[in-house]
Amino acid sequence: MTYCCGILVREGLVMIADTRTNAGLDNISTFRKLQRFEKPGRHVLMLAASGNLSVTQGAVNLLVEGLEDPETGEVQLLEEAQTMMQAAHLVGRAVRSALTLVGDAVENTGVSFDVALLFGGQIGGAKPRLFMIYTAGNAIECTPDTPYLQIGEHKYGKPILDRAITYDTEIYDALKIGLISMDSTIRSNLSVGLPIDIALMRTDTLETEVWHRIDSNDLYFRDLRDRWSTALRAAHISIPAPPYRRESI
Amino acid sequence: MTYCCGILVREGLVMIADTRTNAGLDNISTFRKLQRFEKPGRHVLMLAASGNLSVTQGAVNLLVEGLEDPETGEVQLLEEAQTMMQAAHLVGRAVRSALTLVGDAVENTGVSFDVALLFGGQIGGAKPRLFMIYTAGNAIECTPDTPYLQIGEHKYGKPILDRAITYDTEIYDALKIGLISMDSTIRSNLSVGLPIDIALMRTDTLETEVWHRIDSNDLYFRDLRDRWSTALRAAHISIPAPPYRRESI
Repeated sequence: MTYCCGILVREGLVMIADTRTNAGLDNISTFRKLQRFEKPGRHVLMLAASGNLSVTQGAVNLLVEGLEDPETGEVQLLEEAQTMMQAAHLVGRAVRSALTLVGDAVENTGVSFDVALLFGGQIGGAKPRLFMIYTAGNAIECTPDTPYLQIGEHKYGKPILDRAITYDTEIYDALKIGLISMDSTIRSNLSVGLPIDIALMRTDTLETEVWHRIDSNDLYFRDLRDRWSTALRAAHISIPAPPYRRESI
Repeated sequence: MTYCCGILVREGLVMIADTRTNAGLDNISTFRKLQRFEKPGRHVLMLAASGNLSVTQGAVNLLVEGLEDPETGEVQLLEEAQTMMQAAHLVGRAVRSALTLVGDAVENTGVSFDVALLFGGQIGGAKPRLFMIYTAGNAIECTPDTPYLQIGEHKYGKPILDRAITYDTEIYDALKIGLISMDSTIRSNLSVGLPIDIALMRTDTLETEVWHRIDSNDLYFRDLRDRWSTALRAAHISIPAPPYRRESI
């Protein structure tokens, strides 16, 4: 499984991805799911992937090596896209092409070839944007109403995002809340695991401010997990006991 | 959808169930999913149901009206079971019988006839027990290692149970934590909704101490939701900002 979330606040973009992949519970590995394409001063593009690894890796390769435009025959690279929308379409096409390469041969294997990707970043002076791209290549875009998108095992980590993130959340708070969301997911789903890759891009800087891998020795993340557990315990202890007794029957 | 959880601590048993049913998002109703069978001084049996409503209601009817033993021809009632294990087996047989009544006719309807039930309580001087019963009639039993079971939309409400409940948790704390778990689920999944039915049975009293419906006007539950939101906000605010900066790249 996988858990990735992208958070787009006024101050910029945060992307968080775990690294655990599994082909059955008895075959677990570590793979990078968060990719970065950066040309400081021109663009920062970030891609987080969940689902079938052969398809997502295939798509990333096509984005790096070039994807032929079926109409013009021109080879397009992700790093040459002029707008985030063009880039998101290219990612969608790369997913479809990677699936086509796999072909019909896999149809009856019983393996799912579904994928979902988060694609975010900024190109030039245009606004930062964040998209979720599906297997069919179609996309939805993150908006200030719900300033985050999730892929993979999204449920355990959603309540804290729902309660704590708004478009005006300070960007390092957004990163912190994203890490709490990741922690909740890791605790409840074995197939999501450390290390975690994180990225942070501040609006209009056109370079990543944080590009970091958190492993099990990371002191800040260990402290965050401890503090969050302690705070949750304190939080429920501080709520009065339920008043319902026999008279309610 | 549905969310029900049963919590079995040293001091007794708590059962919590929402009441929302839906046949598509445009057809939402309120149905009681938590049932009680009580003979004060002899037994308290509680049943919470998720999944196909025609099957779970059919099973409950069979338990009340009597289910024929295929070998002896004797009609068995839930309230006459001598042990919790016998009672759990009877619930499993009722589920299978309800499915048989539905028959093969429904096989190609595309509707799921899966169900899951929580069945807990105490009979006489034996220990309180809690079971989860599946569509096939098979069951697993709750143990002190993980002193709760969930059915339906379990993911949103699982992190708080995982962190806060142990077998030695005080029983009204268990109820409170169960309500927090329900609140997290209601916030994140529209198909789980108020009112909530709750039940609490203290070990060896052989009667329910709480049997109550919480609706949207319930002052305690509204206060719990507010306090929990406030405490979560305070909890994440109290965690220091992430230290990762460019030097981590």
